[in-house]
Amino acid sequence: MKPSIEQMHAFFSPRSVAVVGASKKINKAGHVIFKNFVENKRRGVFKGEIYPVNPHEDSILGFKCYSSLSKIPGELDLVVVVVPANHVVNVMRDAASKKVKTVVIISSGFSEIGNHELENQIVTVAKKAGIRVLGPNCLGVYDSRAGVDMLFLPETRVLTTGDVVIATPRPMPGNVAIVTQSGAFGVAALDYLAGRQIGVSKFVSFGNKCDVTEAEMLHYLLYDEETKVILLYVEDIKSGREFLEVAEKVTKEKPVVALKCGRTEAGARAAASHTGAMAGSDRIYDAAFAQTGIFRAKDMEEFFDVGKALAMQPPAAGENVGIITDAGGPGIMAVDECELRGLNVRRFSDETVQKFEELKKEGKLPKFATNLNPVDVTGSATSKMFELATEILFEDPEIHGVIVLGLHHTPALQEDFIDRVAKVASKHDKPIVACDIGETEMALHTRFRFDKLGIPAYSSPEDSARAMNALVRYGLYLKKNKWLKEYVERFLKDKRKTTTYSSNILTST
Amino acid sequence: MKPSIEQMHAFFSPRSVAVVGASKKINKAGHVIFKNFVENKRRGVFKGEIYPVNPHEDSILGFKCYSSLSKIPGELDLVVVVVPANHVVNVMRDAASKKVKTVVIISSGFSEIGNHELENQIVTVAKKAGIRVLGPNCLGVYDSRAGVDMLFLPETRVLTTGDVVIATPRPMPGNVAIVTQSGAFGVAALDYLAGRQIGVSKFVSFGNKCDVTEAEMLHYLLYDEETKVILLYVEDIKSGREFLEVAEKVTKEKPVVALKCGRTEAGARAAASHTGAMAGSDRIYDAAFAQTGIFRAKDMEEFFDVGKALAMQPPAAGENVGIITDAGGPGIMAVDECELRGLNVRRFSDETVQKFEELKKEGKLPKFATNLNPVDVTGSATSKMFELATEILFEDPEIHGVIVLGLHHTPALQEDFIDRVAKVASKHDKPIVACDIGETEMALHTRFRFDKLGIPAYSSPEDSARAMNALVRYGLYLKKNKWLKEYVERFLKDKRKTTTYSSNILTST
Repeated sequence: MKPSIEQMHAFFSPRSVAVVGASKKINKAGHVIFKNFVENKRRGVFKGEIYPVNPHEDSILGFKCYSSLSKIPGELDLVVVVVPANHVVNVMRDAASKKVKTVVIISSGFSEIGNHELENQIVTVAKKAGIRVLGPNCLGVYDSRAGVDMLFLPETRVLTTGDVVIATPRPMPGNVAIVTQSGAFGVAALDYLAGRQIGVSKFVSFGNKCDVTEAEMLHYLLYDEETKVILLYVEDIKSGREFLEVAEKVTKEKPVVALKCGRTEAGARAAASHTGAMAGSDRIYDAAFAQTGIFRAKDMEEFFDVGKALAMQPPAAGENVGIITDAGGPGIMAVDECELRGLNVRRFSDETVQKFEELKKEGKLPKFATNLNPVDVTGSATSKMFELATEILFEDPEIHGVIVLGLHHTPALQEDFIDRVAKVASKHDKPIVACDIGETEMALHTRFRFDKLGIPAYSSPEDSARAMNALVRYGLYLKKNKWLKEYVERFLKDKRKTTTYSSNILTST
Repeated sequence: MKPSIEQMHAFFSPRSVAVVGASKKINKAGHVIFKNFVENKRRGVFKGEIYPVNPHEDSILGFKCYSSLSKIPGELDLVVVVVPANHVVNVMRDAASKKVKTVVIISSGFSEIGNHELENQIVTVAKKAGIRVLGPNCLGVYDSRAGVDMLFLPETRVLTTGDVVIATPRPMPGNVAIVTQSGAFGVAALDYLAGRQIGVSKFVSFGNKCDVTEAEMLHYLLYDEETKVILLYVEDIKSGREFLEVAEKVTKEKPVVALKCGRTEAGARAAASHTGAMAGSDRIYDAAFAQTGIFRAKDMEEFFDVGKALAMQPPAAGENVGIITDAGGPGIMAVDECELRGLNVRRFSDETVQKFEELKKEGKLPKFATNLNPVDVTGSATSKMFELATEILFEDPEIHGVIVLGLHHTPALQEDFIDRVAKVASKHDKPIVACDIGETEMALHTRFRFDKLGIPAYSSPEDSARAMNALVRYGLYLKKNKWLKEYVERFLKDKRKTTTYSSNILTST
């Protein structure tokens, strides 16, 4: 590990951590953050040493309390700071004396409210001492595997009915990293991903980013084995040249999806008032993302949907999409969205059409199935028919990606069509995405089952088309640079190691 | 009621209905449809007479079975046909002799597979006898209040785990009508609306529309008291001139949202192969919808989101949107989407800024709240602060609509902010929409509570901006024609009658 990477690693897996501002008062951020470390240590997840720092307490949650950092025995990898802004410089000086590696400043009251001078003082101390700083004005780090959890927002709430409900959930461990400038958006993202059962590798909220930049964070995540996809939310990007260099290096191996808001003039004005940063022309961002192979999401939903697609599926080697559907209307919606995004939904080759005609003759596909593109297997389609149609499209060398619209409402379609389609897909190196429409039990079950088998599933035809579009765009970027083959090989090797393909779930069908 | 309307009414509230092809075999559509009538009659919801028609049975589900329509005593308002295509012409002839008012042909095997001749024969019999026909190749009608339910798709499914899950749910009664050419999309729409708890007044799937057109259906729904908004899914529109005339008449009083797919060349080709209809140039549809005040949704999600907004909120009298947020980033996303759709998110007037400054001085808003547009009440906002900020925006005569982004994750915000915001909104005649991000308990609770109080809530900032955009577009259309004032007055009168505003839910806060 390079020295800089190793130092960054202290943010996520510190061998020792001090919480300055740790508190006994349960509503305080300093209580929640320290308690999270304590609980994760007791559960055996967090393996480092933990020290509360608070001059007014002897002990907190059974841990001896220290009046300052200097009183702590042994080395400190990480200091989390939760004291008011005007005390932070002193804490930084203590941290410098103590030679700590990294500091996360949760506290706000710095450049985001015009207090640039105070932030500069922090940076000066940090630079001189070689300390890396995350924040200030941030939510810090969440890494479920390492047991690092600085989220201080209330995990549950009590409703007026007396019911206790989850308010700030922790998503399950997974391979999507979240890097966000906005803490509020970050925590909303965790809530979204938890509900959609998309697993997260690491979460970093860097707020005012007085020291560690998004480029450095991307660079760190390039070497993080658990992270396969990086979701980056930014309102501005500092040190653009460094960002371009790093981004290009990262996207060669790991897809990066960006949500950069402030696209319009009014949006940029709002962004400036939010973070104090001048965002610059939006076109420059468009160009920078395109040049470095970062997929820029058009809105929040696309941001998450695309992240899921890139985490689960290999990129496509071209723009030709084949669509299979049991519902005519939704099939057309998928075609429209594909074409509007610049993908091709062309008529199939004669050879492929011939294969469909033969299946129809043999009674293996409904007589009135159409074999243009989309393949409409009709409302009388069975699971086996979906399997056969999927196989034909995967075998067509002119098709680069497949969208399966399997609306569960049709009477003949059985639950096992999902496993059958997934089994076919697992034998090929082309991407596939799925869609089922509906928000009640069977639709949720269908989508989760697809997800579980590594096929990202979406709730509208257009969402599935957008997901496929991202797989194509990333694939074409890699292909242009002659990196595609290597990426896909590595991706599939990884995937076969970590998913349930060819497990008994599939072989039983 | 006009004669034509009265005849159409027989589709939805027949005093007597025969099901031709009623069956004892539980997997047959003819069983499910007849059983639905039987169950609704036993529950006292369907109040008409019901007759199974099947020459091979003496009785079905306890009802005397008839060998043909002619054997049924008394008049018949409606006949539902579920026999194979080649028997349908004979059934139509019997229906003509019997002088039935309306026929729904569920059976497929007509023009959608090139069998135009058979379809023409049906139309000839119908025209001569003055029978109105819905279908063929359709799912027919669902009207929960009248107990008419022709949905024959399996309501539940048994998973391999043994669990029984809802597969084709019936949404709750409400004021959104669904008129759809695609049955598959229709049933998917019901699944979506049921899950999102959006209530439905009437559902009509008209398939090949050999007789009753979408224009006639819109015209009927104009006089349907339960319907406040019409969601229209079409792949083509027949008799364009009639459609334009009727649409203009309808949208004066009830908003119509259209999802017309086949927007691209490849999509139009797919549509042609699906229904056999030539869709014509997409620009003509754009122009027709714009001319008649129909809001054309860009995708499935917008279709439903906009329907919900128009059902719950009055249209806006102008393009200026005010945004309140407790989360900077999501606020910027909402601004971007508003501006990209042509709405204005301008700086507030001096007077409005002054009001915010005073609240800040008095400590009633956080010191670092920004009062540009968006108003960022910051992560330390309380329920009262949301209430005050909402009131200020509603009072500003330059603001035509309000978007409230109330992310529930912030520690100080209590559940009652929703009721407080709703109470403020109920005193004004401007539209308001809400957003909370997240997919776990508290986010779902927050959005449902907003919905319950008549404020449509969305799961992303962009979705809420799109919903507001539709309220603005419809408002500007009505305003241009000088119909806005009357519409808003009627809308608010209706709304005050039917929602829980100023009930004890609100006065208790």
